[in-house]
Amino acid sequence: MDITIIGTGLIGGSMAIALRGAGFAERIIGVDASPAHGARALELGLVDELLPLEEAVAQSGLVILATPINAAETLLPQVMKLAGKQVVMDVGSTKKIICEAASRNTNRGRFVATHPMWGTEYSGPEAAVRGAFTGKATVICNKEDSDADAVELVEKVYGLLGMHIVYMNAADHDVHVAYVSHISHITSFALANTVLEKEKEGDAIFELASGGFESTVRLAKSNPAMWVPIFMQNKENVLDVLNEHIAQLRKFKACLEKENYEYLQELIENANGIRRILK
Amino acid sequence: MDITIIGTGLIGGSMAIALRGAGFAERIIGVDASPAHGARALELGLVDELLPLEEAVAQSGLVILATPINAAETLLPQVMKLAGKQVVMDVGSTKKIICEAASRNTNRGRFVATHPMWGTEYSGPEAAVRGAFTGKATVICNKEDSDADAVELVEKVYGLLGMHIVYMNAADHDVHVAYVSHISHITSFALANTVLEKEKEGDAIFELASGGFESTVRLAKSNPAMWVPIFMQNKENVLDVLNEHIAQLRKFKACLEKENYEYLQELIENANGIRRILK
Repeated sequence: MDITIIGTGLIGGSMAIALRGAGFAERIIGVDASPAHGARALELGLVDELLPLEEAVAQSGLVILATPINAAETLLPQVMKLAGKQVVMDVGSTKKIICEAASRNTNRGRFVATHPMWGTEYSGPEAAVRGAFTGKATVICNKEDSDADAVELVEKVYGLLGMHIVYMNAADHDVHVAYVSHISHITSFALANTVLEKEKEGDAIFELASGGFESTVRLAKSNPAMWVPIFMQNKENVLDVLNEHIAQLRKFKACLEKENYEYLQELIENANGIRRILK
Repeated sequence: MDITIIGTGLIGGSMAIALRGAGFAERIIGVDASPAHGARALELGLVDELLPLEEAVAQSGLVILATPINAAETLLPQVMKLAGKQVVMDVGSTKKIICEAASRNTNRGRFVATHPMWGTEYSGPEAAVRGAFTGKATVICNKEDSDADAVELVEKVYGLLGMHIVYMNAADHDVHVAYVSHISHITSFALANTVLEKEKEGDAIFELASGGFESTVRLAKSNPAMWVPIFMQNKENVLDVLNEHIAQLRKFKACLEKENYEYLQELIENANGIRRILK
């Protein structure tokens, strides 16, 4: 099948590698708003050629929208207007707004809303890696609004990527990812800022940073061009979780201030419950 | 050299493996308040035998205090009373209180206060691993209060572990670790509690958890028996950093509430500065 990938970065590029590796993609056409990114994707062999959006869609059976989510929201109506029998899928981190955008098109059925639960703190074509998605979960949202053959094709794609599929409505998805992804990024950004603030005082404290610090702060390297639109689109859910998280931190603060170490012990024992979830 | 390790868990056990592997430890004597831990350490071959504290110290050239820091504070005066020419070193995560405890002994010079910057979220003898400390930093505090030969022996030990040594006074150490270690644990515990609170509502949200979430929350598995005493002993510094961290989180909250996305972008760009430190 000939495939168009719009946005040849971390996710689009990693999908290109996987779909070519599986023998599924006969030709991969790249569309990228950044000429530099497109050229690099071509150079790295992620895509076979670069075309303008209209020509790319016309020549493809599957169009994968893999841009930051604000660009995806703008691009989707254009892509839908160009799409005939093509299947269009997105891979964005929020699902409610893109599904609303899709529903304003008469051919809504050609669109499948998805979110593969994989990423790294890096971005751009050079961040694309082999075997990226294997063993992870992916979400398909509002499946009932998509044509059966379109869903079937997307399910096949995710099967080839080695992912297992979770079906969910878009609103639930956006609540869940606020908890298991978006808040982690905010805590990591805030932790980096906390420590960088201290660095200004001139201490060489980073010599002491070890694995634990690196683990909690690595997401702070993530690209604002991707994350600002996510926080914008998922503002209400992220605020709910952020308020809860600040309340949880204030419990630790109160324990220390009041020297209530029995309760501190309880809070940590409760947190240890995460062992049930993370193996 | 014959070595006593008091506390045969993650750190003590990993040191035993490394010092035996380097051919430095001829005999390793374990002392453990938990008969079960001691027996397991013997079974795993981490230690050659188990002895009561008094006999163990009498038969050793080096005594490594590797218990949780509250136990170390209690044990140190006992060990110092037993120590003649022996060198006594600790490996605890705070340094001010143990150095104060050491200074109350007439033979303060035999004690070297250290903190190897390595650990995992696991504990006990089974958590001990080979090659644990290689390439990491270790801290020696208040070196001037220790005898020259004692410091020399401890430097040799850390050299064998493949660590590079940073010298620092105990008070500065405790400030620095609040930033690069203790706060990471609090954010991770609090994040786990935030998300586990949600789980109570019955959603299967953890199917969606991927690498980013795991990274920021894995420290939440850490043992309260180790961490409550750390937060107690380093209360003032941890509270300072925690207040700063909550203030940083409130900036993100304010950006979302006021839809000030330019400032949100700035906050994230600033956090990206962590790239200068984490390679």
